[in-house]
Amino acid sequence: MSCKESETYAVPGFLANGIHAGIKENGLKDLALIFSVVPAKASAVFTRNCFKAAPVLLDMERIKSGVAQAILANSGNANAATGEDGYADAVDMSRCASDKLNIADELVLVASTGIIGHRPPVRNIKEGMEGLVGGLHPNGIPAAAEAIMTTDKFPKMSCRKEWIGSREISVCGIAKGAGMIEPHMATMLAFAMTDADIDFHTLDAVFKQAVDRSFNAITVDGCMSTNDTAIILANGMAGNKQLKRNSNNLSLFKEMLFSVMSDLSDAIVRDGEGATKFIEIIVDEASSITDAKKVAYAVANSNLVKTAFYGCDPNWGRIIAAAGSTGINLPVDAVKLYFEEIPVFAHGKGIDGHEKELLEIMSRTNIKVFLKLGMGNKSHRICTSDLTFDYIKINAHYHT
Amino acid sequence: MSCKESETYAVPGFLANGIHAGIKENGLKDLALIFSVVPAKASAVFTRNCFKAAPVLLDMERIKSGVAQAILANSGNANAATGEDGYADAVDMSRCASDKLNIADELVLVASTGIIGHRPPVRNIKEGMEGLVGGLHPNGIPAAAEAIMTTDKFPKMSCRKEWIGSREISVCGIAKGAGMIEPHMATMLAFAMTDADIDFHTLDAVFKQAVDRSFNAITVDGCMSTNDTAIILANGMAGNKQLKRNSNNLSLFKEMLFSVMSDLSDAIVRDGEGATKFIEIIVDEASSITDAKKVAYAVANSNLVKTAFYGCDPNWGRIIAAAGSTGINLPVDAVKLYFEEIPVFAHGKGIDGHEKELLEIMSRTNIKVFLKLGMGNKSHRICTSDLTFDYIKINAHYHT
Repeated sequence: MSCKESETYAVPGFLANGIHAGIKENGLKDLALIFSVVPAKASAVFTRNCFKAAPVLLDMERIKSGVAQAILANSGNANAATGEDGYADAVDMSRCASDKLNIADELVLVASTGIIGHRPPVRNIKEGMEGLVGGLHPNGIPAAAEAIMTTDKFPKMSCRKEWIGSREISVCGIAKGAGMIEPHMATMLAFAMTDADIDFHTLDAVFKQAVDRSFNAITVDGCMSTNDTAIILANGMAGNKQLKRNSNNLSLFKEMLFSVMSDLSDAIVRDGEGATKFIEIIVDEASSITDAKKVAYAVANSNLVKTAFYGCDPNWGRIIAAAGSTGINLPVDAVKLYFEEIPVFAHGKGIDGHEKELLEIMSRTNIKVFLKLGMGNKSHRICTSDLTFDYIKINAHYHT
Repeated sequence: MSCKESETYAVPGFLANGIHAGIKENGLKDLALIFSVVPAKASAVFTRNCFKAAPVLLDMERIKSGVAQAILANSGNANAATGEDGYADAVDMSRCASDKLNIADELVLVASTGIIGHRPPVRNIKEGMEGLVGGLHPNGIPAAAEAIMTTDKFPKMSCRKEWIGSREISVCGIAKGAGMIEPHMATMLAFAMTDADIDFHTLDAVFKQAVDRSFNAITVDGCMSTNDTAIILANGMAGNKQLKRNSNNLSLFKEMLFSVMSDLSDAIVRDGEGATKFIEIIVDEASSITDAKKVAYAVANSNLVKTAFYGCDPNWGRIIAAAGSTGINLPVDAVKLYFEEIPVFAHGKGIDGHEKELLEIMSRTNIKVFLKLGMGNKSHRICTSDLTFDYIKINAHYHT
């Protein structure tokens, strides 16, 4: 079941809230808290950028225990490239929360998103904490989702509830995206909550798989952030028979989790900075997944391809040119390209005669591109957005 | 000496011309011919894209002889992704020229630039040939430079004349760029002519070095073309003592050639689609040139970095984030970043207090960014442009 009503964005044993603490100048929500009433099993994936933000460095230490109880996240300031002072600020932030929540400091994970290179206003965070904690509520997840937004146009939430054995299990996630969305990493910020009782190693493995198939399969602008963080907390409150690696019900849980994560990562692409289109690049018949990924990213990140989609131009030549630029020795005569079901390139040259259908396809908001390499049977799918005037507008004027 | 006057764009023994043959619909010049009165030593560098255009495939065969006498180039049609028919068209094109010039077909190189996926209008080329050959002129190089333009805003030419021993030697080049300008390849089209007498292997080596330091050190949009071609013809008409690998005068010739090629590649960046700024990314203190290049390209191709320059925003966080995303394990605390002479990042954090100077620097048209990695003593310099509304406008509406 997919949760459409706002009151269904809830997971037993989790409270959440989001407030304006004065970090953002525009008066919008900027501080989010997610709290599990009992310590939860925790797994996380972080950016692979060398210049990891302070909260990422702190969480990387804390997540080693495999247990966490709260996530404190702010928007409006990334606390990245802030050196030792920034790290101390991240610790202070977590302490504001642990003090008020009366839990061990080590059980608090922190996350920040926004401007790079400025120390976070810890004073605002401290001052906001009483209201933030005081307002924690089982239906507070939407408020938390709002509070982690930066240039996002809408909050990103997804929820699934399924019966696993005799217990109903919930999986719910929130995310923020919009800019600096790139391959080979978690994504901006994504927090998943579940009341499932699940063995730590199983949770860890399943979560990393889901991240790989969702957040690591999208790209908006090919730019890897310093702050990307995806965290899952599983508090076991559902009281189900603990899920383990070889449990019969594990596949159902995996499906729920992947479905939630996938909703969130799709929403990030749809809300990509300035995006007007959602484009799926499906590379097939590759000799390895690595090759398939390389070609898919080359196409998905090509500014010429992305501007052509914005212009509703079925300019398949740019896709072919991007695919051919990766260094993989493609068999030119075996490569085939389709826009949806329409073939546009095969046997080393373009296929004429479908101009009308192609113009109709290009006018759609959701477009699938299939590229068959004719080299093997591996495939990879990447979702991307178009490159528009608004991307330039947003990013030329989002000042430090 | 740099050639500022249009009549000085001439090289003894070379004739050139550019006309409108009806390939472009806008009535502008679209067919160029460069002709050496005697067969010339020839070297070339081509795109590494798998989907090489037909003229590239043809030239790759013909250049093996190391000799050529003419270059026939058209704009308005790339003759790429046109299969065997397109290859036959390229051969036909060359035959139109060799017939009229009364030289062996194998001595003609061809180049095409423009739309991908459409067969070139060989009939127009054939019909235009009489006027094209009839108008060949020692001062025809500027007309040829005009005739290879696509979305270029100005023709790109450069010339040097120097005394080598008792002979004056000329090196002159033309190029076209604007879109699909990317690392790891020649560039769009660039043709260099010299009357120097130079041993083939020396010419070949010197030319490839010059291409690496010029055209392979720029990026506009990170998109590798199917047609990139750089050719040099050396006809020996200067009558100098033949330059060989260990000639004393070789370094002077190398300098001339690099200077011409560098003028052209700089002009391509300045005229990058929609570009308003010329940005040099100098990565220093890398442990290898490969690493330095990787970091330089990551920064130079980052859409977030490029839009920040467009917005005159000294957003150094985006440069740091791009540099950190390459997979190279940078020593975060040793990395230093400067905008011109102003330090903005060191010891893992931003450096405040230079806001006024930075705003002044960012308002300039030419900006140097120095990134010191603190890992070794290798360096690499890449020139790039900003990403602007006009790039989107040009590329969303340059229809197939």
